[in-house]
Amino acid sequence: MRRTWKLNDADLDALTIGAAILGTGGGGNPYLGKLRARALLRQGYAVRILPFDALEDDDVVVSVGGIGAPVVGIEKIEKGDECYLAMRALEAYTRCRATALIPAEVGGSNSIEPLIAAAYANLPVVDADGMGRAFPEVQMCTYFIYGARPYPAALADEKGNTVILGKVQDMYWLEKLARTVAVDMGAAAGFALPPMRGEEVRRTAVPHTLTQALGLGRAVLEARARRKNPIERVLEVAKGVLLFAGKVVNVQHRIEKGFARGQVRIEGVEGFKGSSLVLEIQNENLIARRDGEVVATVPDLITVLDLETAEPITTETVRYGFRVAVLGLPAHLRLKTPRALEVVGPRAFGYDLDYRPLEGRV
Amino acid sequence: MRRTWKLNDADLDALTIGAAILGTGGGGNPYLGKLRARALLRQGYAVRILPFDALEDDDVVVSVGGIGAPVVGIEKIEKGDECYLAMRALEAYTRCRATALIPAEVGGSNSIEPLIAAAYANLPVVDADGMGRAFPEVQMCTYFIYGARPYPAALADEKGNTVILGKVQDMYWLEKLARTVAVDMGAAAGFALPPMRGEEVRRTAVPHTLTQALGLGRAVLEARARRKNPIERVLEVAKGVLLFAGKVVNVQHRIEKGFARGQVRIEGVEGFKGSSLVLEIQNENLIARRDGEVVATVPDLITVLDLETAEPITTETVRYGFRVAVLGLPAHLRLKTPRALEVVGPRAFGYDLDYRPLEGRV
Repeated sequence: MRRTWKLNDADLDALTIGAAILGTGGGGNPYLGKLRARALLRQGYAVRILPFDALEDDDVVVSVGGIGAPVVGIEKIEKGDECYLAMRALEAYTRCRATALIPAEVGGSNSIEPLIAAAYANLPVVDADGMGRAFPEVQMCTYFIYGARPYPAALADEKGNTVILGKVQDMYWLEKLARTVAVDMGAAAGFALPPMRGEEVRRTAVPHTLTQALGLGRAVLEARARRKNPIERVLEVAKGVLLFAGKVVNVQHRIEKGFARGQVRIEGVEGFKGSSLVLEIQNENLIARRDGEVVATVPDLITVLDLETAEPITTETVRYGFRVAVLGLPAHLRLKTPRALEVVGPRAFGYDLDYRPLEGRV
Repeated sequence: MRRTWKLNDADLDALTIGAAILGTGGGGNPYLGKLRARALLRQGYAVRILPFDALEDDDVVVSVGGIGAPVVGIEKIEKGDECYLAMRALEAYTRCRATALIPAEVGGSNSIEPLIAAAYANLPVVDADGMGRAFPEVQMCTYFIYGARPYPAALADEKGNTVILGKVQDMYWLEKLARTVAVDMGAAAGFALPPMRGEEVRRTAVPHTLTQALGLGRAVLEARARRKNPIERVLEVAKGVLLFAGKVVNVQHRIEKGFARGQVRIEGVEGFKGSSLVLEIQNENLIARRDGEVVATVPDLITVLDLETAEPITTETVRYGFRVAVLGLPAHLRLKTPRALEVVGPRAFGYDLDYRPLEGRV
């Protein structure tokens, strides 16, 4: 038996909070996925986690997640077994069997989708992912940034359609073709990425992100239970910085090229009184400017939490009057190499800014 | 050796004229495809035709054609071996080898694409197709109308992307998914339809349409050479009727839901002086009204030819001042059953008209 451990009911609660924190405002709401995963646990299915260092070289690892219309979110909740069906279609096409699954992104609802597929398939889920947060497009997976072959991949929908991307030129074509197929499929498809060998996952994935999400969520839940400050606990666990605390005074949203773009303006309270902070949003929170000065940029995580409860607030739900804390959490090193920054740095999102690590700014 | 015969250079000339006549204004221009096929013949490739009655029950027949944006046309000329690549991708997916190819549609450029793929693959092309003319969408193939399974299918583009539609709910989903993938691929992809057994092709295809196109083209070329009336020859060979002769006085074009829609108004000359005829167009000529009375409807073929040379005139190239003959050619019986009319009759194109056979009208 592999060295794995099982997720329980309480873990699911913690994981969804942590995944929403790592979702940096995007990644969709993991709540429905949690309910579905919980129902599976109660039916006797098991969700097992494979520690990152227990990966073996010849493991066959398939990364899965939901994919949809950009506005709906790469992270739209699936109806059920779409990721599982996509994974099985990919197995049939490649004539090999997966030995483990891994999330494409840990942020938001896509932390839960792989657990559901893994429960159906009776496979463990590797404690890692391809983003270490949420990003809007599939080429932003570290797997591809660090050279994993971008094909073959498979999509499946709840109606029983399955599509295999047998060969694509590069990771941008993988995104392009998968996205339109997913939109045809009703903006909610299961997506199985090309099978990777264990050693390839070790070389390309963002490690320990499921346990990171779990740890963040547990910290919030425990702090709430003990009436401690959950925001401080999140900062401790994630080694983050409090960028701002304040009241949302303006929210601008628009749809541009299929992305939800916008700005959120926050006026300071407490130690930030007299200051203001502006968030630049493209599905996720990408740039934070405090009194005009950039204090954090993608790929570092900019997370908005309710100032009292530390409940994560997504870019779709943020509203005038919300009292929020804005946290900066340092991205994993694998997102900050020159190679990664070409794909997930501020310029990749159209901002004329060089990336400077959060740690260097504060 | 199978009982096949080889196409020669002169056959290609005749075939392209005949295919354009059967294209009923759509189907794209087969001219570039003809040049490419001719180049292959000169390089020593062979294009062999398999007579319809030489099909064997256990033949494995793959139908191929170009597919693209509806406006560009299902029939946009391919750069080269896309249909061949799609066919090979489908073979790899299904783990079976094709023994023959067959056109998805005989009208327009898609009469030539299968010949090119067959030359590369050294396979014969069945003397039949899935439309007996040109239609804009893949569910209009008689293969699917008469129950061929609509999956798996494959698309390939000139950049090397290949996509396999592993499973689709029905022929409408096949069209929907293939179309958007093809649009992503730059509106010009090779498309390989689900492999059929020989007996299935016999039961579902429109037979003898390659030789029909050849015969029509030869009749035109011979009549021109002998200074006879080529339009009369086309009517004789296709057992058609002259619906109208006149001068184009008005052309309206618009793009609606991706279809090229329009109307062409023609004022009568010769025996039709004092009358006028209006053609309703959706990629192809679908309805002909003479002095307000419907004289022909889809699926019967409404073909516009130059009044002197019988050169086919497509719906994109028709212009004010052209002197044209409008011919009605009876569609094959397999397009006129109640089952077929649900998919390719006037109502399937949004016209509040019952189909009445051309033969019954005149």
